[in-house]
Amino acid sequence: MGTVDYTSPQGSEEPHRRHHTVEAPQPQPFLKSLQYSVIETLFPDDPFRQFKNQKPSRKVVLGLKYFFPICDWAPRYNLNLLKSDLIAGITIASLAIPQGISYAKLANLPPILGLYSSFVPPLVYAVLGSSRDLAVGTVAVGSLLTGAMLSKEVDAEKDPKLYLHLAFTATFFAGVLEASLGIFRLGFLVDFLSHATIVGFMGGAATVVSLQQLKGIFGLRHFTDATDVISVMRSVFSQTHQWRWESGVLGCGFLFFLLSTRYFSTKKPKFFWVAAMAPLTSVILGSLLVYFTHAERHGVQVIGELKKGLNPLSVSDLVFTSPYMSTAVKTGLITGVIALAEGIAVGRSFAMFKNYNIDGNKEMLAFGMMNIVGSFTSCYLTTGPFSRSAVNFNAGCKTAVSNIVMAIAVMFTLLFLTPLFYYTPLVVLSSIIISAMLGLIDYQAAIHLWKVDKFDFLVCMSAYFGVVFGSVEIGLVVAVVISIARLLLFVSRPRTAVKGNIPNSMIYRNTEQYPYSRTIPGLLILEIDAPIYFANAGYLRERITRWIDEEEDRVKASGENSLQYIILDMSAVGNIDTSGISMMEEIKKVIDRRELKLVLANPKGEVVKKLTRSKFVDSLGKEWMFLTVGEAVEACSYMLHTLKTEPTTKKEPWNNV
Amino acid sequence: MGTVDYTSPQGSEEPHRRHHTVEAPQPQPFLKSLQYSVIETLFPDDPFRQFKNQKPSRKVVLGLKYFFPICDWAPRYNLNLLKSDLIAGITIASLAIPQGISYAKLANLPPILGLYSSFVPPLVYAVLGSSRDLAVGTVAVGSLLTGAMLSKEVDAEKDPKLYLHLAFTATFFAGVLEASLGIFRLGFLVDFLSHATIVGFMGGAATVVSLQQLKGIFGLRHFTDATDVISVMRSVFSQTHQWRWESGVLGCGFLFFLLSTRYFSTKKPKFFWVAAMAPLTSVILGSLLVYFTHAERHGVQVIGELKKGLNPLSVSDLVFTSPYMSTAVKTGLITGVIALAEGIAVGRSFAMFKNYNIDGNKEMLAFGMMNIVGSFTSCYLTTGPFSRSAVNFNAGCKTAVSNIVMAIAVMFTLLFLTPLFYYTPLVVLSSIIISAMLGLIDYQAAIHLWKVDKFDFLVCMSAYFGVVFGSVEIGLVVAVVISIARLLLFVSRPRTAVKGNIPNSMIYRNTEQYPYSRTIPGLLILEIDAPIYFANAGYLRERITRWIDEEEDRVKASGENSLQYIILDMSAVGNIDTSGISMMEEIKKVIDRRELKLVLANPKGEVVKKLTRSKFVDSLGKEWMFLTVGEAVEACSYMLHTLKTEPTTKKEPWNNV
Repeated sequence: MGTVDYTSPQGSEEPHRRHHTVEAPQPQPFLKSLQYSVIETLFPDDPFRQFKNQKPSRKVVLGLKYFFPICDWAPRYNLNLLKSDLIAGITIASLAIPQGISYAKLANLPPILGLYSSFVPPLVYAVLGSSRDLAVGTVAVGSLLTGAMLSKEVDAEKDPKLYLHLAFTATFFAGVLEASLGIFRLGFLVDFLSHATIVGFMGGAATVVSLQQLKGIFGLRHFTDATDVISVMRSVFSQTHQWRWESGVLGCGFLFFLLSTRYFSTKKPKFFWVAAMAPLTSVILGSLLVYFTHAERHGVQVIGELKKGLNPLSVSDLVFTSPYMSTAVKTGLITGVIALAEGIAVGRSFAMFKNYNIDGNKEMLAFGMMNIVGSFTSCYLTTGPFSRSAVNFNAGCKTAVSNIVMAIAVMFTLLFLTPLFYYTPLVVLSSIIISAMLGLIDYQAAIHLWKVDKFDFLVCMSAYFGVVFGSVEIGLVVAVVISIARLLLFVSRPRTAVKGNIPNSMIYRNTEQYPYSRTIPGLLILEIDAPIYFANAGYLRERITRWIDEEEDRVKASGENSLQYIILDMSAVGNIDTSGISMMEEIKKVIDRRELKLVLANPKGEVVKKLTRSKFVDSLGKEWMFLTVGEAVEACSYMLHTLKTEPTTKKEPWNNV
Repeated sequence: MGTVDYTSPQGSEEPHRRHHTVEAPQPQPFLKSLQYSVIETLFPDDPFRQFKNQKPSRKVVLGLKYFFPICDWAPRYNLNLLKSDLIAGITIASLAIPQGISYAKLANLPPILGLYSSFVPPLVYAVLGSSRDLAVGTVAVGSLLTGAMLSKEVDAEKDPKLYLHLAFTATFFAGVLEASLGIFRLGFLVDFLSHATIVGFMGGAATVVSLQQLKGIFGLRHFTDATDVISVMRSVFSQTHQWRWESGVLGCGFLFFLLSTRYFSTKKPKFFWVAAMAPLTSVILGSLLVYFTHAERHGVQVIGELKKGLNPLSVSDLVFTSPYMSTAVKTGLITGVIALAEGIAVGRSFAMFKNYNIDGNKEMLAFGMMNIVGSFTSCYLTTGPFSRSAVNFNAGCKTAVSNIVMAIAVMFTLLFLTPLFYYTPLVVLSSIIISAMLGLIDYQAAIHLWKVDKFDFLVCMSAYFGVVFGSVEIGLVVAVVISIARLLLFVSRPRTAVKGNIPNSMIYRNTEQYPYSRTIPGLLILEIDAPIYFANAGYLRERITRWIDEEEDRVKASGENSLQYIILDMSAVGNIDTSGISMMEEIKKVIDRRELKLVLANPKGEVVKKLTRSKFVDSLGKEWMFLTVGEAVEACSYMLHTLKTEPTTKKEPWNNV
């Protein structure tokens, strides 16, 4: 049963005590453990579990359902669901049309592209996507990033055609990246964008986008291409004589209208449609106002002519020749990752609400296909924006059909209604963007970060200020680098602590966390709080040595029994590498040389395995590993007692049975 | 006493049971905890402990001793020690002179530089260094790296002066880097070169260096600048008609002599001096041979004239102008780190043998100063090479005086003996280098890595093949990147396991490691084996959900009692960040929605603090956190029992007292 009996060698009156032995897990062949690691790394959610023990024909059906979720829900679709999806679809369409046009301007692209992008990609997603609540469309940050990165290479005004083609190419590569991350199940790479990073980055991007709208609000014609706050403010305030009050009044008015409807809808969630309809209402009101007052002649810029008709094909427009391709690839990769991070997070949160599962990697494939097909049909980068999906959710959508409804509504607009946007003032679009962006500045999340974890707050602020004062890319790089550096710092500086006995129990805990716990004279119980790797092995060696030094000093000063045993609690050491093993060997040498004895408590399977293979266990002695700190202390205290009364006793008083 | 009593609300006959509450550590002001973190990060070994509670005058003395270790040991120096150091010093000088000349050739530098570099730096180290066994000198890998990196920019044959000055400048920057790492206590950055990396890298570099010596062995005059094995072999075998048999025979002879003396000394450690004297003997024999046979006229290349005299000043030679400075900086940084890694590791291992402490950061400062002063006095990169230090150790050195003795011996050589090296054949130097390099290929360590940790073996092999087939820099970068990627992969994929009860105890352990442990019906006990960060939060969410799914399936299939409680053992979760907290919240939602109950066992101080601040503990209920898994199981089993007999009982049967 894995227990060891030991009795006093002198046959004293000590009660018969036993302790448990530490077991090593069954050794596994290398290939099997490799296979296990690969599966755990790439398929933690075991997506193919449902295929097990099924007939081949059933497997094909399940496979179809797996790769095309529409096959799963379409057969069960009914009129009731359609009713809900219809309402939700029309609601998000009313948001998609003005937002689409606005965001396309943000990317320096023709406004009509925003409508194209709300037509084809939602259809693709409806077939491949597994979220029931995601509403597909373009996003502000992605648009801004596309605009900023492409403008560095090509001037959108001087060479609009090349610029447009580069945007398609970037979208294509974004799609390819997203799809391949999904296929190779590397979705976890997106996890390296931590929550704190995303909060800071989104807030920064929203700030930058809002500031850029000052161009529209003040009706300025010339404006900086840079996105940092200093260039933008300089651009605004160096042109005070160009400000148009008509435009400013209109902008502030609509902004006030949009913000107050949003405030109202936040307070009364039943009236979600008020906020959802507000942008379209603003567009209609603004257009009517301009039409009747001829404000376009008084400095209020309007959208102008939009071409009627559905998406033209753009397969042949993709640019695969240098020197432009590298820009497109770079833009595609960065915008693709950002779009993915937002889309996945949004899909996951709503799935969480409604208690269904979505497979991140499958979603990535859907996003990827959506953007690849999009790039062939004159669309630019799309994902699942938070604001639109929230409206979709509140409007009571049931399935991805709401996306189809939205696409049909946009199709109608493209076919018949585009001339109506001729008089839509740009300033209304700016107001729509600002109002959407202010919702993305999640200052409450930042306050929460400050309260809970100062370092995460620092990461968040670095991302924010990196974006605001540098550029979107700089902010992103800074935040990711700080996040990883933070991780490495954490890994390289694990906590160690002294443990003491919780009175009247066999439990041993950190003496700092449990001040009433009592240390045992003659023993030093240390716990290591993290796996031991090369990155922290050196530190742990120093730190453990220092604990021992300090304890010896303390013992000397207080005149207690001299230190005899060092018990290392390995409960939290989930893994160890060869540098860690060398560290353990060095620690053992240090302890041996001081004529102390090293004792291990509760080493985990992986650790026991590696320590055994490297002969450390042999040199330590298997009997010096205990299942719990309590049993280790019991054995050591017993030894201490025996040694005191009978100094000649050998150091191992028990025998394996 | 931090315990909670709970009795059955129905006043049943259940015995009076108690469990311990989980405590949060004392909240600390932000600045204090920041200070603590900084100290733990930068001063884990608490170097200033000795200064505490001392008089100011004593502090000055201790400070002097701290910064100039020579002040510590010099007053206690005596004749006995000198005798030992004298023998050791002369032994290492006999090794230093031929090695110095050989390695300088490796860096494409004039041979005399090798002697200069064995004169000034050892003196500096003797004053500042705290290792008693380190022998200072140039190293093969550092020399090769310097040569390879500088040759890319400047041709050593066409512009020897500029090349030389760049070498000094690179040494200067290497010193500045080393000193600043020491001053800012960033020595732990060197820890990111893991043991496996260093084994592979050193082996690769040794292979490359050995292969390059084929130039000398075959007496070739033209040779490739590239270091990869393919270029080198092509260079050797495309010139078969240029091979000189005289040179080849001589080289193989001396190589055989050197290797057999080394083998002899390894077998009989008392005769360490045989191997130590062998290089100098070879040089003398080789020179005599050439002198008497006039072999220099038959294709055996010789060193030629060496300038008499001590190191000339080179302060004014340092190059601080573009375009060359950036090369020098880059070379300096990379060679500096490599030299540091070797020197620190060597110093530490010997200190470990003799049971004294060396402070890594202080050593870095010493290395840095040694190279800065070196760069002012015509020396190039020096550190503490393993081979020379091992000879020093075996020769019985007691203090850094052996370095002073070596420096004096080299000084004599520089002043009077340089003409004797005129006839020294280059092929002898090549043999010396090869014989030293073969000792660096630590194939046994590689086998050990394979046995203990396959992934570390992979890292090691990547470094090896990167160096051998790419270049020294490529190998290094590949190995560091793989090491860190491995770390991130480990961090992002912590182990989770089901725990079961060890029969007849309150102990719960991993059921895989302890197959005889028994799971408890109605409960699922999961342990998380690592701190929770953004990099693994997503994975843990998926994995824990899957454990619950699988358990529910199993329970359904076996017809056991339905699952009621999920106990998360947090013992190994040393820390958590905000992404981790969000993950916990999501897990709690998932568990709540399935009408299960989440229970935490043994959350650590830092984790309790953050979970409390983020209100997670409030939503979980403080009473659902237990000090041990055993107590959690006891409470849950009790609840299960109560619920079964009295289904209307509220879910919290105990009250805080």
